[in-house]
Parts: sequence; structure tokens; C-alpha cells
Amino acid sequence: MTKNLTPIIEANNKYSKEFDKGDLSAQPKKNLAILTCMDARFDPAKALGLEEGDAHVIRNAGGRVTDDAIRSLVVSHKLLGTIEWILIQHTDCGMQKISDETIAKLLEDDLETASFNGKSWSNNNAQSENSKPGSKEGHKINWYTFSSLKQSMTEDLKIIKSHSLIPSNIKIHGFIYEVSSGKLIKIEDYK
Amino acid sequence: MTKNLTPIIEANNKYSKEFDKGDLSAQPKKNLAILTCMDARFDPAKALGLEEGDAHVIRNAGGRVTDDAIRSLVVSHKLLGTIEWILIQHTDCGMQKISDETIAKLLEDDLETASFNGKSWSNNNAQSENSKPGSKEGHKINWYTFSSLKQSMTEDLKIIKSHSLIPSNIKIHGFIYEVSSGKLIKIEDYK
Repeated sequence: MTKNLTPIIEANNKYSKEFDKGDLSAQPKKNLAILTCMDARFDPAKALGLEEGDAHVIRNAGGRVTDDAIRSLVVSHKLLGTIEWILIQHTDCGMQKISDETIAKLLEDDLETASFNGKSWSNNNAQSENSKPGSKEGHKINWYTFSSLKQSMTEDLKIIKSHSLIPSNIKIHGFIYEVSSGKLIKIEDYK
Repeated sequence: MTKNLTPIIEANNKYSKEFDKGDLSAQPKKNLAILTCMDARFDPAKALGLEEGDAHVIRNAGGRVTDDAIRSLVVSHKLLGTIEWILIQHTDCGMQKISDETIAKLLEDDLETASFNGKSWSNNNAQSENSKPGSKEGHKINWYTFSSLKQSMTEDLKIIKSHSLIPSNIKIHGFIYEVSSGKLIKIEDYK
């Protein structure tokens, strides 16, 4: 049992003892799906007031509309009846502070966690004796980094709206989550 | 404003008014990442006792180790310092009740939500007059359906552990979430 697992198992014991939601349907009650970033600071259920059973929640690095996000969204609508989707990306996103090329270069050097000094990224050479060898495989990956939040939101909303497997009658909204304030801002109102 | 958006915006106004977590770091406090399903019934933060700032949460249809999940996990470790990952798939998963071939066939017919009668899937022909035309594109997609939960967990854990961009010193755990009880069950203990 690791330092992290012990409190998680304790919390889950408590949660399951008080659990009274065993008969919820797999179909989201609100016919709603959220696509957002994996960022630790954002708790979609708390920030949007959602309960267990209300909505699908899809999350990846950046909250980007990747092929896998499309797979999940199509499953969400076609098999489980969601008809309204909300895309939420956020301020201070790690994927906005780095380029695909830099990620690939950092991974080529070693696989240990790199450092960001507020301006640029570097590997921690002090760790190099113990560090795992790097890999060139990172050059083959689309990391979905972005330079403008409004632009990435606009492009991603466009991909969803024009996709051949997504019907045009699905309601699609875009919001930006401000990590400094906990506020959701409509993409049209974001400056 | 849709029926869903109104209460979400109200809940977010309340959340942001009481918000006192504006100085959290992008690096998860517990150096932890969770990979799990988008299922509406599962609230990872509540079920595992996690607070804002604690852990990355990556979610897709099935909680499968797709290429995009690997992208997110590598970003989580290499750029944001997570060193412990938990893979959580769950009972009664939609992805276990259908095959890749059936999803593709349903989509070829039309893009409207299909029905499951407890045994098999079918498109709702009654809706066909208004339904959007289907698409053959679904045949090109790996939908990541699975027939055995224990097998999908075992295979997915293996993909993570053997991946060239993932260092071997990351602690990796597998749990199954039981939607009927709210309980997390270690993969080794699941029957």
C-alpha cells in the first residue's frame, strides 16, 4: 500500500458505505457530455454542480478534440443518448507552455520529469546518472500543444461540428475555466 | 441558454464565489494520475476522496489505454511530475456490451442514438424519416470495445508497463469500480 493508496482506500470505504446510487442508468440523466482537460485543479463535478449519473466526463491533456475524444463523444451520443456537449479548456494549461518539438526533444534525452523555469523547459541533468534512457518515439506523436487558448477552442469546436460521425443537431458549447477564480467563461466572452 | 446550462452556470457562480484555490500548482499535489472511464455514474474525486489540485484525471470511453491516454500520461509524468498512476475500469460498462463491428454498422445506417434491449443493439427505425444520414467512417476506427473486464484491465496495464515512453519506476495500480456498490476492488481481488 503506497502513501497515496491508503487514504484513497479509506475514502472509498466511507463513500461506498454511504452509497445509495446503485441503480443509476448508464445513460446520463442530463443527456450531457463534458470534454475537458485532465488538469488536477479542475473538478468538473464540483465546478459545474454535477451529480453521479448526470453527465459523461471525457478528459485528456489539454481537453483537446483528439481522435480518441471523438471516439468517446460518438459513443456518448450514438450508444448512450447524449445530445448536448460542453468543451472546456482552461487558463494556465501546461499544453500552452511548451511545443510538440520540445516535448519530443526532452523525451529523447531521458524519461524523468523535466523542469520549467517560467520561461523554458530543461531536463534535470543532476539526475542523469540514475535516469532511464530516453526514446525518439516522442517525435512520432501529435502532442496537441497550443499557443492560443481562444484559437485552440475555436479549432476544436470546428472539428466537432464538422465531423462526419457527429450529427448536426447536437448542442455544442465552449467555455474556458479560469483556474485563478474557479469561473467558467463563455468562449464568446473570453478576451 | 439551454435547460442544462442554466443550473450549471448558477452552480458555477456559487462555486467561484466560495473559491479559495486560485494559487494551486499545475503539478498535482499527490503526484498522482487517474485513468478511468467517462461513465456518468463514476465521480473519481468523490469516490477516491480527491480534492482540487491532487491528481490528474484522464477519462475516455471504457477507461482504455488508447494512444491518446498514453499521450496524456506521458505529459502527466514528464512535464508535471506524477509518479503514481491508477487505472480504473468499471462493471456494467457500455463498451463491454457491444462490438467494434456493431458500432460501425449502427453508424453506417444513421447517426441517431441507437437502442439496447438488454441483449442486442438496433437503430430506431421509427426515427428514420428525420434521421441524419449515416457514415462508413466508423469502420476505420478502433472503438476499444472489450468482452472481459479482467482481460481488458490486464492488457491495458501491460501496455502502460511496456511502453517505450514510460519509465519503469512509475507505480501503477489497477482497480475495478463497482457501479452497484461504489466500491473500488483491486484487480487481483476481482472475480
